[in-house]
Amino acid sequence: MPVKTVQVTEKILASNASVAEANRAKLDAAGVFAINLISSPGSGKTSLVEATVRALMPAFRIGMINGDTSPAALDAERGARAGASAIHVNTAGKCHLEANMIGMALESLPLDGLDLLIVENVGNLVCPSHWALGTHATVVVASTPEGSDKPFKYPASYRGVDALVLNKVDLLPYLDFDMELFMRGVRELNPGVSAFPLSCRSGEGFERWTDWIISGIAGQRS
Amino acid sequence: MPVKTVQVTEKILASNASVAEANRAKLDAAGVFAINLISSPGSGKTSLVEATVRALMPAFRIGMINGDTSPAALDAERGARAGASAIHVNTAGKCHLEANMIGMALESLPLDGLDLLIVENVGNLVCPSHWALGTHATVVVASTPEGSDKPFKYPASYRGVDALVLNKVDLLPYLDFDMELFMRGVRELNPGVSAFPLSCRSGEGFERWTDWIISGIAGQRS
Repeated sequence: MPVKTVQVTEKILASNASVAEANRAKLDAAGVFAINLISSPGSGKTSLVEATVRALMPAFRIGMINGDTSPAALDAERGARAGASAIHVNTAGKCHLEANMIGMALESLPLDGLDLLIVENVGNLVCPSHWALGTHATVVVASTPEGSDKPFKYPASYRGVDALVLNKVDLLPYLDFDMELFMRGVRELNPGVSAFPLSCRSGEGFERWTDWIISGIAGQRS
Repeated sequence: MPVKTVQVTEKILASNASVAEANRAKLDAAGVFAINLISSPGSGKTSLVEATVRALMPAFRIGMINGDTSPAALDAERGARAGASAIHVNTAGKCHLEANMIGMALESLPLDGLDLLIVENVGNLVCPSHWALGTHATVVVASTPEGSDKPFKYPASYRGVDALVLNKVDLLPYLDFDMELFMRGVRELNPGVSAFPLSCRSGEGFERWTDWIISGIAGQRS
Protein backbone atom coordinates (compact mmCIF):
# COMPACT_ATOMS: atom_id res chain seq x y z
CA MET A 1 0.00 0.00 0.00
CA PRO A 2 1.47 3.39 -0.92
CA VAL A 3 2.17 5.83 1.91
CA LYS A 4 -0.27 8.70 2.34
CA THR A 5 0.65 12.01 3.94
CA VAL A 6 -1.60 14.02 6.26
CA GLN A 7 -0.64 17.69 6.30
CA VAL A 8 -1.22 19.41 9.64
CA THR A 9 -2.76 22.87 9.31
CA GLU A 10 -3.63 25.66 11.72
CA LYS A 11 -7.32 24.91 11.31
CA ILE A 12 -7.06 22.09 13.81
CA LEU A 13 -8.79 23.59 16.82
CA ALA A 14 -10.93 21.01 18.62
CA SER A 15 -9.85 20.23 22.13
CA ASN A 16 -7.32 17.43 22.31
CA ALA A 17 -8.94 15.39 25.06
CA SER A 18 -12.35 15.13 23.42
CA VAL A 19 -10.81 14.20 20.08
CA ALA A 20 -8.72 11.54 21.84
CA GLU A 21 -11.92 10.10 23.30
CA ALA A 22 -13.50 10.00 19.85
CA ASN A 23 -10.42 8.25 18.45
CA ARG A 24 -10.61 5.66 21.22
CA ALA A 25 -14.30 5.02 20.49
CA LYS A 26 -13.53 4.54 16.81
CA LEU A 27 -10.69 2.11 17.56
CA ASP A 28 -12.85 0.18 20.04
CA ALA A 29 -15.73 -0.06 17.56
CA ALA A 30 -13.36 -1.55 15.00
CA GLY A 31 -11.73 -3.87 17.59
CA VAL A 32 -8.26 -2.43 16.98
CA PHE A 33 -5.62 -2.43 19.76
CA ALA A 34 -3.60 0.79 19.46
CA ILE A 35 -0.26 1.75 21.02
CA ASN A 36 1.62 5.05 21.04
CA LEU A 37 5.43 4.80 20.84
CA ILE A 38 7.34 7.74 22.34
CA SER A 39 11.11 8.10 22.50
CA SER A 40 14.22 10.12 21.73
CA PRO A 41 15.18 10.41 18.06
CA GLY A 42 17.22 7.37 17.12
CA SER A 43 16.11 4.94 19.84
CA GLY A 44 14.86 2.60 17.13
CA LYS A 45 11.10 3.13 17.09
CA THR A 46 10.87 2.46 13.35
CA SER A 47 13.06 -0.64 13.65
CA LEU A 48 10.72 -1.81 16.41
CA VAL A 49 7.71 -1.24 14.15
CA GLU A 50 9.36 -3.12 11.28
CA ALA A 51 10.36 -6.08 13.44
CA THR A 52 6.95 -6.19 15.16
CA VAL A 53 5.10 -6.12 11.84
CA ARG A 54 7.32 -8.88 10.42
CA ALA A 55 6.85 -11.02 13.54
CA LEU A 56 3.05 -10.67 13.70
CA MET A 57 2.05 -10.81 10.06
CA PRO A 58 0.20 -12.47 8.45
CA ALA A 59 -1.59 -13.72 11.61
CA PHE A 60 -2.39 -10.11 12.51
CA ARG A 61 -3.09 -7.13 10.27
CA ILE A 62 -1.29 -3.98 11.27
CA GLY A 63 -1.63 -0.26 10.66
CA MET A 64 1.01 2.40 11.36
CA ILE A 65 0.70 6.14 11.82
CA ASN A 66 4.05 7.87 11.73
CA GLY A 67 4.60 11.43 12.94
CA ASP A 68 7.54 13.35 11.54
CA THR A 69 8.50 17.01 11.62
CA SER A 70 9.47 16.92 7.95
CA PRO A 71 7.66 16.18 4.68
CA ALA A 72 9.86 13.11 4.07
CA ALA A 73 7.88 9.92 4.73
CA LEU A 74 11.00 7.82 5.34
CA ASP A 75 9.72 5.97 8.41
CA ALA A 76 6.20 5.38 7.11
CA GLU A 77 7.76 3.94 3.95
CA ARG A 78 9.78 1.53 6.11
CA GLY A 79 6.59 0.46 7.89
CA ALA A 80 4.83 0.00 4.56
CA ARG A 81 7.68 -2.07 3.14
CA ALA A 82 7.48 -4.31 6.23
CA GLY A 83 3.80 -4.89 5.43
CA ALA A 84 1.83 -2.35 7.46
CA SER A 85 -0.87 -0.01 6.17
CA ALA A 86 1.12 3.15 6.83
CA ILE A 87 0.12 6.80 7.10
CA HIS A 88 2.68 9.60 7.35
CA VAL A 89 1.68 12.64 9.41
CA ASN A 90 3.81 15.68 8.56
CA THR A 91 3.55 17.83 11.69
CA ALA A 92 5.18 20.74 9.82
CA GLY A 93 7.77 21.26 12.53
CA LYS A 94 5.50 20.52 15.51
CA CYS A 95 7.28 18.50 18.16
CA HIS A 96 4.55 15.94 18.95
CA LEU A 97 1.41 14.27 17.61
CA GLU A 98 -2.00 15.51 18.76
CA ALA A 99 -5.31 13.67 18.86
CA ASN A 100 -6.73 15.50 15.86
CA MET A 101 -3.76 14.44 13.70
CA ILE A 102 -4.54 10.84 14.66
CA GLY A 103 -8.23 11.45 13.91
CA MET A 104 -7.37 12.63 10.41
CA ALA A 105 -5.06 9.66 9.84
CA LEU A 106 -7.68 7.16 11.08
CA GLU A 107 -9.95 8.29 8.25
CA SER A 108 -7.38 7.03 5.75
CA LEU A 109 -6.81 3.65 7.40
CA PRO A 110 -8.83 0.45 6.74
CA LEU A 111 -9.68 0.15 10.45
CA ASP A 112 -12.14 -2.72 10.09
CA GLY A 113 -9.39 -4.78 8.49
CA LEU A 114 -6.82 -4.15 11.26
CA ASP A 115 -5.96 -5.88 14.54
CA LEU A 116 -3.22 -3.55 15.71
CA LEU A 117 -2.40 0.11 15.17
CA ILE A 118 1.09 1.33 16.00
CA VAL A 119 1.45 5.09 16.32
CA GLU A 120 5.06 6.20 16.04
CA ASN A 121 5.24 9.63 17.63
CA VAL A 122 7.72 12.37 16.72
CA GLY A 123 11.16 11.53 18.16
CA ASN A 124 11.04 13.64 21.31
CA LEU A 125 11.34 12.53 24.92
CA VAL A 126 9.67 15.65 26.37
CA CYS A 127 6.58 16.89 24.52
CA PRO A 128 4.59 13.83 23.28
CA SER A 129 3.91 12.62 26.83
CA HIS A 130 1.54 15.55 27.42
CA TRP A 131 -0.81 14.71 24.54
CA ALA A 132 -3.40 11.92 24.76
CA LEU A 133 -4.07 10.40 21.35
CA GLY A 134 -6.81 7.88 22.14
CA THR A 135 -4.52 4.85 21.97
CA HIS A 136 -4.87 2.05 24.54
CA ALA A 137 -1.26 2.00 25.71
CA THR A 138 1.73 4.32 25.64
CA VAL A 139 5.13 2.70 25.29
CA VAL A 140 8.39 4.55 25.94
CA VAL A 141 11.20 3.20 23.77
CA ALA A 142 14.61 3.75 25.36
CA SER A 143 17.91 2.52 23.95
CA THR A 144 21.12 1.57 25.72
CA PRO A 145 23.44 4.14 24.04
CA GLU A 146 21.31 6.96 25.48
CA GLY A 147 22.66 6.13 28.93
CA SER A 148 21.20 4.84 32.16
CA ASP A 149 20.35 8.29 33.59
CA LYS A 150 17.42 9.02 31.27
CA PRO A 151 14.52 8.12 33.63
CA PHE A 152 15.92 10.62 36.14
CA LYS A 153 16.18 13.38 33.53
CA TYR A 154 12.96 12.86 31.54
CA PRO A 155 10.57 11.68 34.27
CA ALA A 156 7.40 12.78 32.44
CA SER A 157 8.06 10.26 29.67
CA TYR A 158 8.63 7.35 32.07
CA ARG A 159 5.87 8.12 34.55
CA GLY A 160 2.44 6.81 33.60
CA VAL A 161 3.45 4.84 30.51
CA ASP A 162 2.17 1.29 30.19
CA ALA A 163 5.29 -0.39 28.87
CA LEU A 164 8.97 0.26 28.42
CA VAL A 165 11.11 -1.14 25.61
CA LEU A 166 14.86 -0.93 26.19
CA ASN A 167 16.25 -1.38 22.69
CA LYS A 168 19.82 -2.10 21.48
CA VAL A 169 20.80 -4.48 24.28
CA ASP A 170 23.20 -6.03 21.71
CA LEU A 171 25.40 -2.95 22.24
CA LEU A 172 25.74 -3.42 26.02
CA PRO A 173 29.27 -4.93 25.81
CA TYR A 174 30.51 -1.71 24.19
CA LEU A 175 28.80 0.81 26.50
CA ASP A 176 29.00 1.99 30.12
CA PHE A 177 25.30 1.31 30.67
CA ASP A 178 24.26 0.68 34.29
CA MET A 179 21.19 -1.55 34.00
CA GLU A 180 20.54 -1.55 37.74
CA LEU A 181 20.55 2.27 37.91
CA PHE A 182 18.31 2.52 34.83
CA MET A 183 15.75 0.03 36.16
CA ARG A 184 15.81 1.68 39.59
CA GLY A 185 14.90 4.98 37.92
CA VAL A 186 12.16 3.31 35.91
CA ARG A 187 10.65 1.52 38.93
CA GLU A 188 10.72 4.63 41.12
CA LEU A 189 8.65 6.53 38.56
CA ASN A 190 6.51 3.65 37.42
CA PRO A 191 6.51 0.61 39.72
CA GLY A 192 4.15 -1.57 37.68
CA VAL A 193 5.47 -0.92 34.18
CA SER A 194 6.01 -3.87 31.83
CA ALA A 195 9.68 -3.76 30.80
CA PHE A 196 11.12 -5.34 27.65
CA PRO A 197 14.91 -5.22 27.23
CA LEU A 198 15.47 -6.35 23.64
CA SER A 199 17.40 -5.92 20.43
CA CYS A 200 15.59 -5.31 17.16
CA ARG A 201 18.86 -6.20 15.44
CA SER A 202 19.67 -9.53 17.11
CA GLY A 203 16.11 -10.50 18.07
CA GLU A 204 17.13 -11.03 21.71
CA GLY A 205 14.16 -10.52 24.06
CA PHE A 206 11.77 -9.82 21.19
CA GLU A 207 9.27 -12.59 21.84
CA ARG A 208 8.27 -11.26 25.28
CA TRP A 209 7.43 -7.96 23.53
CA THR A 210 5.28 -9.53 20.82
CA ASP A 211 3.56 -11.67 23.47
CA TRP A 212 2.59 -8.44 25.24
CA ILE A 213 1.23 -7.02 21.99
CA ILE A 214 -0.71 -10.21 21.23
CA SER A 215 -2.30 -10.16 24.68
CA GLY A 216 -3.35 -6.54 24.07
CA ILE A 217 -4.95 -7.55 20.77
CA ALA A 218 -6.72 -10.45 22.51
CA GLY A 219 -7.98 -8.13 25.26
CA GLN A 220 -9.44 -5.75 22.69
CA ARG A 221 -11.28 -8.61 20.96
CA SER A 222 -12.82 -10.06 24.12
CA MET B 1 31.76 25.54 43.06
CA PRO B 2 28.35 24.18 44.17
CA VAL B 3 25.64 23.92 41.56
CA LYS B 4 22.90 26.56 41.66
CA THR B 5 19.40 25.99 40.32
CA VAL B 6 17.33 28.58 38.47
CA GLN B 7 13.61 27.84 38.73
CA VAL B 8 11.61 28.85 35.65
CA THR B 9 8.28 30.49 36.47
CA GLU B 10 5.37 31.81 34.47
CA LYS B 11 6.45 35.38 35.17
CA ILE B 12 8.99 35.21 32.37
CA LEU B 13 7.33 37.30 29.72
CA ALA B 14 9.83 39.52 27.90
CA SER B 15 10.18 38.82 24.23
CA ASN B 16 12.78 36.16 23.51
CA ALA B 17 14.64 37.95 20.72
CA SER B 18 15.30 41.14 22.66
CA VAL B 19 16.45 39.20 25.71
CA ALA B 20 18.76 37.15 23.49
CA GLU B 21 20.29 40.42 22.20
CA ALA B 22 20.82 41.61 25.76
CA ASN B 23 22.48 38.30 26.66
CA ARG B 24 24.79 38.63 23.66
CA ALA B 25 25.76 42.17 24.67
CA LYS B 26 26.54 41.01 28.19
CA LEU B 27 28.69 38.13 26.93
CA ASP B 28 30.51 40.42 24.48
CA ALA B 29 31.17 43.00 27.19
CA ALA B 30 32.74 40.29 29.34
CA GLY B 31 34.67 38.82 26.38
CA VAL B 32 33.07 35.39 26.78
CA PHE B 33 32.62 33.07 23.77
CA ALA B 34 29.32 31.20 24.20
CA ILE B 35 27.99 28.11 22.44
CA ASN B 36 24.57 26.44 22.57
CA LEU B 37 24.56 22.62 22.37
CA ILE B 38 21.38 21.06 21.00
CA SER B 39 20.74 17.33 20.50
CA SER B 40 18.61 14.28 21.17
CA PRO B 41 18.62 12.96 24.73
CA GLY B 42 21.60 10.66 25.13
CA SER B 43 23.80 11.93 22.31
CA GLY B 44 26.48 12.73 24.87
CA LYS B 45 26.21 16.50 25.34
CA THR B 46 27.28 16.30 28.99
CA SER B 47 30.16 13.97 28.16
CA LEU B 48 31.21 16.51 25.52
CA VAL B 49 31.08 19.30 28.11
CA GLU B 50 33.11 17.25 30.60
CA ALA B 51 35.78 16.31 28.05
CA THR B 52 35.95 19.88 26.68
CA VAL B 53 36.34 21.37 30.15
CA ARG B 54 39.06 18.86 31.05
CA ALA B 55 40.91 19.51 27.78
CA LEU B 56 40.81 23.32 28.03
CA MET B 57 41.37 23.92 31.72
CA PRO B 58 43.33 25.51 33.32
CA ALA B 59 44.37 27.55 30.25
CA PHE B 60 40.75 28.64 29.81
CA ARG B 61 38.05 29.28 32.42
CA ILE B 62 34.71 27.77 31.58
CA GLY B 63 31.09 28.26 32.61
CA MET B 64 28.21 25.88 31.92
CA ILE B 65 24.45 26.45 31.89
CA ASN B 66 22.52 23.21 31.83
CA GLY B 67 18.84 22.98 30.96
CA ASP B 68 16.85 20.03 32.26
CA THR B 69 13.14 19.31 32.48
CA SER B 70 13.54 17.96 36.00
CA PRO B 71 14.72 19.36 39.34
CA ALA B 72 17.67 16.93 39.40
CA ALA B 73 20.92 18.78 38.62
CA LEU B 74 22.74 15.63 37.46
CA ASP B 75 24.36 17.12 34.35
CA ALA B 76 25.30 20.45 35.93
CA GLU B 77 26.94 18.49 38.75
CA ARG B 78 28.98 16.55 36.16
CA GLY B 79 30.10 19.86 34.61
CA ALA B 80 30.99 21.24 38.03
CA ARG B 81 33.00 18.14 38.92
CA ALA B 82 34.94 18.53 35.66
CA GLY B 83 35.85 22.07 36.76
CA ALA B 84 33.24 24.38 35.20
CA SER B 85 31.22 27.06 37.00
CA ALA B 86 27.89 25.33 36.48
CA ILE B 87 24.30 26.55 36.68
CA HIS B 88 21.33 24.21 36.47
CA VAL B 89 18.17 25.58 34.86
CA ASN B 90 15.10 23.56 35.81
CA THR B 91 12.66 24.27 32.97
CA ALA B 92 9.85 22.62 34.97
CA GLY B 93 8.91 20.36 32.09
CA LYS B 94 9.48 22.88 29.29
CA CYS B 95 11.11 21.28 26.28
CA HIS B 96 13.75 23.93 25.49
CA LEU B 97 15.75 26.80 26.96
CA GLU B 98 14.66 30.38 26.28
CA ALA B 99 16.70 33.57 26.31
CA ASN B 100 15.29 34.79 29.62
CA MET B 101 16.35 31.54 31.34
CA ILE B 102 19.89 32.21 30.09
CA GLY B 103 19.62 35.83 31.26
CA MET B 104 18.73 34.66 34.78
CA ALA B 105 21.57 32.14 34.79
CA LEU B 106 24.10 34.73 33.56
CA GLU B 107 23.42 36.75 36.70
CA SER B 108 24.72 33.86 38.79
CA LEU B 109 27.89 33.28 36.76
CA PRO B 110 31.25 35.04 37.29
CA LEU B 111 31.25 36.26 33.66
CA ASP B 112 34.31 38.49 33.95
CA GLY B 113 36.32 35.49 35.04
CA LEU B 114 35.26 33.27 32.12
CA ASP B 115 36.59 32.66 28.60
CA LEU B 116 33.98 30.19 27.42
CA LEU B 117 30.33 29.53 28.26
CA ILE B 118 28.80 26.22 27.21
CA VAL B 119 25.00 26.11 27.25
CA GLU B 120 23.69 22.55 27.29
CA ASN B 121 20.11 22.75 26.07
CA VAL B 122 17.31 20.33 27.01
CA GLY B 123 17.78 17.03 25.15
CA ASN B 124 15.37 17.59 22.27
CA LEU B 125 16.08 17.62 18.55
CA VAL B 126 12.97 19.62 17.62
CA CYS B 127 12.12 22.56 19.88
CA PRO B 128 15.41 24.22 20.98
CA SER B 129 16.32 25.19 17.40
CA HIS B 130 13.51 27.77 17.37
CA TRP B 131 14.80 29.76 20.36
CA ALA B 132 17.73 32.20 20.09
CA LEU B 133 19.62 32.43 23.39
CA GLY B 134 22.22 35.09 22.61
CA THR B 135 25.10 32.62 22.23
CA HIS B 136 27.64 33.08 19.43
CA ALA B 137 27.32 29.63 17.92
CA THR B 138 24.83 26.78 17.92
CA VAL B 139 26.24 23.25 17.78
CA VAL B 140 24.11 20.21 17.00
CA VAL B 141 25.47 17.09 18.73
CA ALA B 142 24.54 13.91 16.87
CA SER B 143 25.68 10.41 17.81
CA THR B 144 26.23 7.37 15.65
CA PRO B 145 23.69 5.03 17.35
CA GLU B 146 20.88 7.46 16.43
CA GLY B 147 21.28 6.43 12.80
CA SER B 148 22.34 8.15 9.61
CA ASP B 149 18.84 9.35 8.64
CA LYS B 150 18.53 12.05 11.31
CA PRO B 151 19.39 15.13 9.17
CA PHE B 152 16.57 14.14 6.80
CA LYS B 153 14.07 13.77 9.65
CA TYR B 154 15.01 16.73 11.88
CA PRO B 155 16.05 19.32 9.28
CA ALA B 156 15.36 22.34 11.53
CA SER B 157 18.10 21.24 13.94
CA TYR B 158 20.71 20.76 11.20
CA ARG B 159 19.89 23.81 9.11
CA GLY B 160 21.53 27.04 10.25
CA VAL B 161 23.71 25.60 13.01
CA ASP B 162 27.36 26.65 13.08
CA ALA B 163 28.93 23.31 13.89
CA LEU B 164 28.09 19.63 14.05
CA VAL B 165 29.60 17.14 16.46
CA LEU B 166 29.08 13.49 15.54
CA ASN B 167 29.79 11.71 18.82
CA LYS B 168 30.39 7.99 19.58
CA VAL B 169 32.41 7.17 16.46
CA ASP B 170 34.03 4.44 18.60
CA LEU B 171 30.76 2.48 18.19
CA LEU B 172 30.85 2.52 14.36
CA PRO B 173 32.13 -1.09 14.07
CA TYR B 174 29.00 -2.31 15.88
CA LEU B 175 26.39 -0.23 14.03
CA ASP B 176 24.85 0.03 10.57
CA PHE B 177 25.71 3.71 10.31
CA ASP B 178 26.05 5.08 6.75
CA MET B 179 28.49 7.99 7.13
CA GLU B 180 28.18 9.03 3.49
CA LEU B 181 24.38 9.26 3.72
CA PHE B 182 24.57 11.17 7.01
CA MET B 183 27.08 13.71 5.70
CA ARG B 184 25.11 14.11 2.46
CA GLY B 185 22.05 15.03 4.54
CA VAL B 186 24.09 17.44 6.64
CA ARG B 187 25.69 19.15 3.60
CA GLU B 188 22.38 19.49 1.76
CA LEU B 189 20.88 21.38 4.69
CA ASN B 190 24.00 23.23 5.74
CA PRO B 191 26.79 23.29 3.14
CA GLY B 192 29.31 25.28 5.17
CA VAL B 193 28.93 23.66 8.57
CA SER B 194 32.06 22.69 10.54
CA ALA B 195 31.80 18.96 11.20
CA PHE B 196 33.58 17.11 14.00
CA PRO B 197 33.23 13.31 14.07
CA LEU B 198 34.70 12.31 17.44
CA SER B 199 34.44 10.07 20.46
CA CYS B 200 34.29 11.56 23.94
CA ARG B 201 35.11 8.09 25.22
CA SER B 202 38.21 7.26 23.15
CA GLY B 203 39.33 10.84 22.45
CA GLU B 204 39.42 10.20 18.69
CA GLY B 205 38.87 13.41 16.71
CA PHE B 206 38.61 15.51 19.86
CA GLU B 207 41.48 17.92 19.16
CA ARG B 208 39.88 19.36 16.02
CA TRP B 209 36.83 20.19 18.16
CA THR B 210 38.82 21.94 20.90
CA ASP B 211 40.81 23.81 18.22
CA TRP B 212 37.49 25.15 16.90
CA ILE B 213 36.48 26.24 20.41
CA ILE B 214 39.86 27.90 21.01
CA SER B 215 39.59 29.85 17.76
CA GLY B 216 36.13 31.02 18.86
CA ILE B 217 37.56 32.22 22.17
CA ALA B 218 40.39 33.98 20.33
CA GLY B 219 37.92 35.67 17.98
CA GLN B 220 35.92 36.96 20.91
CA ARG B 221 39.04 38.46 22.49
CA SER B 222 40.32 40.25 19.37
